[in-house]
Amino acid sequence: MEGVTEQSKSALKKAEKQAKMAAEKAAKAAKNASKQANLPVVGGKKTDDIIGITVTKTDNFSQWYQEVVLKAEMVEYYQEISGFFVLRPISMYIWSTIRKWFQERIENLGVEEASFPMFLSAKSLEKEKDHVEGFAPELAWVTKAGDKDLEVPVAVRPTSEAVMYPYYAKWIRSHRDLPLRLNQWNSVVRWEAKQTTPFLRTREFLWQEGHTAHLNEELAGVEVLQILDWYAGIYEELLAVPVVKGRKTQNEKFAGGYYTTTVEGYIPSNGRGIQGGTSHCLGQNFSKMFDITVEDPANKGNHIHVWQNSWGLSTRVIGVMVMVHGDNKGLVLPPRIAKLQTILIPVGINKSTTPEARKQHEEQLLDIQHTLKKAGVRVDVDFRDGYTPAWKFNDWELKGVPLRIEFGPKDAANKVVSFARRDTGEKGTVALDELSTKIPELLETIQKDMYSKAETSFREHRLKITNWDEVLPALDNKNVVLIPFCGDGKCEDRIKELTTRVDEQPDVPENQKPPTMGMKSLCIPFEQPEGIVAGETECLNPECKGKADKWTMFGRSY
Amino acid sequence: MEGVTEQSKSALKKAEKQAKMAAEKAAKAAKNASKQANLPVVGGKKTDDIIGITVTKTDNFSQWYQEVVLKAEMVEYYQEISGFFVLRPISMYIWSTIRKWFQERIENLGVEEASFPMFLSAKSLEKEKDHVEGFAPELAWVTKAGDKDLEVPVAVRPTSEAVMYPYYAKWIRSHRDLPLRLNQWNSVVRWEAKQTTPFLRTREFLWQEGHTAHLNEELAGVEVLQILDWYAGIYEELLAVPVVKGRKTQNEKFAGGYYTTTVEGYIPSNGRGIQGGTSHCLGQNFSKMFDITVEDPANKGNHIHVWQNSWGLSTRVIGVMVMVHGDNKGLVLPPRIAKLQTILIPVGINKSTTPEARKQHEEQLLDIQHTLKKAGVRVDVDFRDGYTPAWKFNDWELKGVPLRIEFGPKDAANKVVSFARRDTGEKGTVALDELSTKIPELLETIQKDMYSKAETSFREHRLKITNWDEVLPALDNKNVVLIPFCGDGKCEDRIKELTTRVDEQPDVPENQKPPTMGMKSLCIPFEQPEGIVAGETECLNPECKGKADKWTMFGRSY
Repeated sequence: MEGVTEQSKSALKKAEKQAKMAAEKAAKAAKNASKQANLPVVGGKKTDDIIGITVTKTDNFSQWYQEVVLKAEMVEYYQEISGFFVLRPISMYIWSTIRKWFQERIENLGVEEASFPMFLSAKSLEKEKDHVEGFAPELAWVTKAGDKDLEVPVAVRPTSEAVMYPYYAKWIRSHRDLPLRLNQWNSVVRWEAKQTTPFLRTREFLWQEGHTAHLNEELAGVEVLQILDWYAGIYEELLAVPVVKGRKTQNEKFAGGYYTTTVEGYIPSNGRGIQGGTSHCLGQNFSKMFDITVEDPANKGNHIHVWQNSWGLSTRVIGVMVMVHGDNKGLVLPPRIAKLQTILIPVGINKSTTPEARKQHEEQLLDIQHTLKKAGVRVDVDFRDGYTPAWKFNDWELKGVPLRIEFGPKDAANKVVSFARRDTGEKGTVALDELSTKIPELLETIQKDMYSKAETSFREHRLKITNWDEVLPALDNKNVVLIPFCGDGKCEDRIKELTTRVDEQPDVPENQKPPTMGMKSLCIPFEQPEGIVAGETECLNPECKGKADKWTMFGRSY
Repeated sequence: MEGVTEQSKSALKKAEKQAKMAAEKAAKAAKNASKQANLPVVGGKKTDDIIGITVTKTDNFSQWYQEVVLKAEMVEYYQEISGFFVLRPISMYIWSTIRKWFQERIENLGVEEASFPMFLSAKSLEKEKDHVEGFAPELAWVTKAGDKDLEVPVAVRPTSEAVMYPYYAKWIRSHRDLPLRLNQWNSVVRWEAKQTTPFLRTREFLWQEGHTAHLNEELAGVEVLQILDWYAGIYEELLAVPVVKGRKTQNEKFAGGYYTTTVEGYIPSNGRGIQGGTSHCLGQNFSKMFDITVEDPANKGNHIHVWQNSWGLSTRVIGVMVMVHGDNKGLVLPPRIAKLQTILIPVGINKSTTPEARKQHEEQLLDIQHTLKKAGVRVDVDFRDGYTPAWKFNDWELKGVPLRIEFGPKDAANKVVSFARRDTGEKGTVALDELSTKIPELLETIQKDMYSKAETSFREHRLKITNWDEVLPALDNKNVVLIPFCGDGKCEDRIKELTTRVDEQPDVPENQKPPTMGMKSLCIPFEQPEGIVAGETECLNPECKGKADKWTMFGRSY
């Protein structure tokens, strides 16, 4: 730099400063461009490829699931506290659709809505130790308010028996107060130590909990089954997910209850069973603990403890639905619970399209949208600038919208729209003047086809097995099994041990090994296949001498 | 007992034992009879008189209120933890009616439902200290899960700004993501140190909290007012409670926000104002704290902070409704939010009625019920045995059912039903063949009349005052006042001091003294009376030199 004049030095500095400013501006512009394109900036580059699901459902099911629920904008991981999730609008749409459907039915049954406090005192927990024991390790304890210690710590409810039943004892004064049926829609907290998974296992979840009291076992039992039917209806009619209804074994029933009925689902990708919702008859166990009695109307002067039920269904249902229907492109939503059922995408517009033609095209799209809305279809038009139709297709496929409609000048000329089904990829056209009937029909067809496909898969992977040696291969082939089982708790424990694989291949990489998880009972299905002779058929456990009088469904499970 | 034979001794013992058993049996029977009759046993006696409200609304308003909400079966005090309440079905019916009404409207506006976790980490609270400061003393802290201490304690949300806005920063990437409008229906916890009151001030309460982001002030402002209109609609159209819409003063606005709009109610019994629901424009305060920006579409390259609103309405609305409409007999429910709108009571049946006549009467009642149900009326028949019609009248009046219908053999002969309105006590008849039109009309009339009565009362007790000396007498006469006010915060503080009465009568019993509470501003009503000349009219505070350009509503308040 020697010999450089002061003037040129100054010019140089100015140039440097300008260059620096230009660089900063460019960097900012790049960031904004990326922001605008909805893409994360990774090392300063646009990463278009990150948009889709990066693994297949078959290769890495667990990662696939996490990517789907995140990228389809169903949830966010709550950064602040692990094990908690934000439920975004498309999830809440599903939950509120379920809520309306179920609420309408239980209201007609005479179930009333109530809202009990979210906290339990340490004292009230002592009253029903057996029931609480299972929840104790997962209780979240509030010990301080502001900066003052509470005199008695309070726990966030993991479920509300201990909160509600003291009031049942107060309110139920006569058999005329029966049935007492209350339900609440709320969230509960179970501070799980295990790995959490969006929807399936979370430290806080939304659910409904119904708690009812009846005069006798029979009346309680009728309700247990009615509720269970509606739980099955939520899965089958709304979520297009097949379930098997049945009764839990002694080992698997609700600890404090008399018997538990359940709807059990099946995840084809890993062959695991999953509990979908439970409707319990609590018998008189809680009414004895909480002293809930009435005078027997058939035997004056004689006091009897009421019969109680409780039943709950949670946002877990959403996770089951995602696992059953999703594919390598992302989420696949059944139309009845999709917030957006149909996305309309403009195609065939390019630089040579005149402004008038563009405007006409836009108006035609809005007309189509209007027609569909009037027909009751939840529909939107994707007018976003700067994205190719192909990019939009991928985006909406990722988000699981059941039906895509494409519309361009050619379609306009032919007076049709072109469509693509999300579930099957099937394409076709529908005449413009038939939109208001054909599109709703098509959506219903998609709903039914999705259910049929899942139902076939579950049916084909529910194997009746009468030879013990076939059990483990069946599980490895992603089946659940129906086996003759004696019902004994210890026998069930032993079956789990016998089907738990010890690691025989220490050198094989983890993801190439068969699963080691043992099987447990899922339910004793109400619908029993033939083939069991009571008092004769033997329990399938080779070590068991017991007789089986029911087929019991076993499987690896969530 | 000398000379008594062994035999007679034994007989005596036996007799004693029998007598004891008989006494026990009698005591038990008495308890059961009481239980059956729904009456508390006090010292072994039935206490029919406890059923009604034991004080008048005028004499002891606070006890009156507590008795009404308890005895009308709206709430239970939660015995385990003070400051918490159980909301029973008639309360939840009101809340879910409000929920449906409001949800439908915000959905049409494009507000989506979401569900964020109930906990906040200590860390996230630090980010927005100013906002949080007000809530800090009321935060419930979870410090333990099971028997393990949490590494970082978490607080139960008192409101969700700090939970939600980090995600707004993540989701809002472009102006095309605006408006972002989310709402959640949940419960929040504020561990109040002050005396709690059912509905009005409770440590946990149900509410909805809407949080939205917009491109600019104008768009945000339109929404603020739209929501406020709907809040007014909830009060006026559903709860039959008049409110005044307006803007909060600087002193009374939401601490973290830009401006606050509010609907203000009025409790005639004590002349106090009560805040009914608030719709805030947060301005850019939170978007700056949480770095929520978009590129300005009108000025590329330039990033702007979004404009945010938040708005919330809680179960407090139910308490206001109870206070406004209730009377010395108990609750009075407006028909639109009454779970039970009409109660049908059999009358004129006595010991001489033949079984056939009884049966016919019963069938006629069921027919009437059926007709009314078909006409959309929520109606029940009180067939309870062992209670006089008069007892039933009292019971349903206590519970606030808007319309009582009596029906007996005389009515049957005249082909009419007799009715009594809960709100006015007015009686009349309706022809049987006009039930399906006249009863729904009558219910709508009751709804409107209840609103008119309350509206008149509020209007007559909202006094325009331009003479400082009239302020305190106006407050003592259970008015709120409209005064010219400069808007200054310190002046407002001083007005409160000046209207706070020092105890001048130490010998007068507490309940006979005028209230000492000073007045604060309720709102600057949107609807301004005439009479203020901007730049001329002086602030009413005699110590203030400022000019007033608005009438401001002040009052003693909740």
